[in-house]
Amino acid sequence: MKLSTVKIAGRVTWGVVEGETFWDTGAVLSGTYSGLKAAVANGLEGVAAAKDGAASFPLSEVEWLPVLPDPDKILCVGLNYETHRQETGRSVVENPTIFGRFANSQTGHMAPILRPKVSDMLDYEGELAIIIGKPGRYISSEDALSHVAGYSIYNDGSVRDYQWHTHQFTPGKNFPDTGAFGPWMMTPDELGDLSPLRIQTRLNGEVVQDSTFDMMIFDVARIIEYCSSFTRLEAGDVIATGTPGGVGAKRKPPLWMKPGDVVEVEIDKLGILRNPIGQES
Amino acid sequence: MKLSTVKIAGRVTWGVVEGETFWDTGAVLSGTYSGLKAAVANGLEGVAAAKDGAASFPLSEVEWLPVLPDPDKILCVGLNYETHRQETGRSVVENPTIFGRFANSQTGHMAPILRPKVSDMLDYEGELAIIIGKPGRYISSEDALSHVAGYSIYNDGSVRDYQWHTHQFTPGKNFPDTGAFGPWMMTPDELGDLSPLRIQTRLNGEVVQDSTFDMMIFDVARIIEYCSSFTRLEAGDVIATGTPGGVGAKRKPPLWMKPGDVVEVEIDKLGILRNPIGQES
Repeated sequence: MKLSTVKIAGRVTWGVVEGETFWDTGAVLSGTYSGLKAAVANGLEGVAAAKDGAASFPLSEVEWLPVLPDPDKILCVGLNYETHRQETGRSVVENPTIFGRFANSQTGHMAPILRPKVSDMLDYEGELAIIIGKPGRYISSEDALSHVAGYSIYNDGSVRDYQWHTHQFTPGKNFPDTGAFGPWMMTPDELGDLSPLRIQTRLNGEVVQDSTFDMMIFDVARIIEYCSSFTRLEAGDVIATGTPGGVGAKRKPPLWMKPGDVVEVEIDKLGILRNPIGQES
Repeated sequence: MKLSTVKIAGRVTWGVVEGETFWDTGAVLSGTYSGLKAAVANGLEGVAAAKDGAASFPLSEVEWLPVLPDPDKILCVGLNYETHRQETGRSVVENPTIFGRFANSQTGHMAPILRPKVSDMLDYEGELAIIIGKPGRYISSEDALSHVAGYSIYNDGSVRDYQWHTHQFTPGKNFPDTGAFGPWMMTPDELGDLSPLRIQTRLNGEVVQDSTFDMMIFDVARIIEYCSSFTRLEAGDVIATGTPGGVGAKRKPPLWMKPGDVVEVEIDKLGILRNPIGQES
């Protein structure tokens, strides 16, 4: 099943995507769930049944919002592909590198990623996103996948000069309208085995990042195990699992995203997250 | 005015503290504000008037919760006192060092700070906390103080081995029940000029950190200016402004907090945030 949060004629709702159709299960279940996060917290119970009675809309009438506009936590893994670790010159470490993003930095599929007026150093980072379903602490890697509600695509848009102001990445990872998240989440039964799947980032159609998930240094199970060792993971929490080599900042000369560009992150089976680049006014 | 979020006989509410009395304005205004964050977002309008009709309780009957249990963002400033920068051996930087804490890592006054079962390296960090009232982006330092709803005390409890797993601090700063926040927030009119105020941390009665706010490298106005350059600050957002020298990790031998200890952070005029140390079972 594929699930999205969207706006239709100015009204925010969430529902099921099939082919070119959006089914407004959020309207059917509005008395039960306040949003997709609440549905995820309840194991998506009743969602498939609600689709039968839901109004449908062509995707062309849908304005995409972040899959989850309001996660309690967005944890991001840094340096999780060997190609990216090498291009940054960072040491090998035994545990995932984790930093945080706050919900008000997110944007949806097809919405502009904004280059802020204080920087020209706007960079892409195509990533697989994990959406937590079942809360937990001290989750073992053996149990980890049973805590996953679904997967999605994240573009962890980064403002590099702010990321490098100090040794902590947080400022460069939290500009408004830089964390693109969408178009939908896909349940694990539909996505199947992750390891052979390809992730590719394209800027104006040119491939700039290209890897498969078996190239991750820390896999999804290990990431969940580690994150849950220092925080209680809650339903609707998002973990962006890190980006492959090829970021714009490490090219010679650097490749920055600028207004008018279009950036796409594609993951096999999952889909394409596409965003134009806009300029903050 | 001093304001707190508390539990009374199992019921969560918020209200005004005067002397040894808590006034339950949250009950009076329950139709208007869902909690203290909502009241802060509305400039605390109606709170003083609501106190006249509010039930009162002795502070001895109050269980303290984090002043704001549900901030959208908790931004933390690292290395903001020269004494602490020097003991860590970090370079001088032109901008504040910022990392994030999530709301589910917080605890209240008098509640235990928990040493997790995965580490013995639990450390204190006494800090001044800013509570944002008026939202904003690109706030100038000249305007910054008009965005402050109040100040409070934060103990940015840190699990040092997790903080040092990689170059990103986030894991060591997000363990459950490590971010102590309380007992109350005080409005700026009551606190007055910050610069001469003393902040002192005591572990089992012994002074371990001792400074005044005029020793901050980046003052409150500059911190707000910087944070609002990369994120939109929202009402109820919390900024912990960094800790003075004297942390346990940099002592020889290191001084870790252990079950049975009591840690206090005192700020002149503001009060004392006191927490026993517990052991996660």
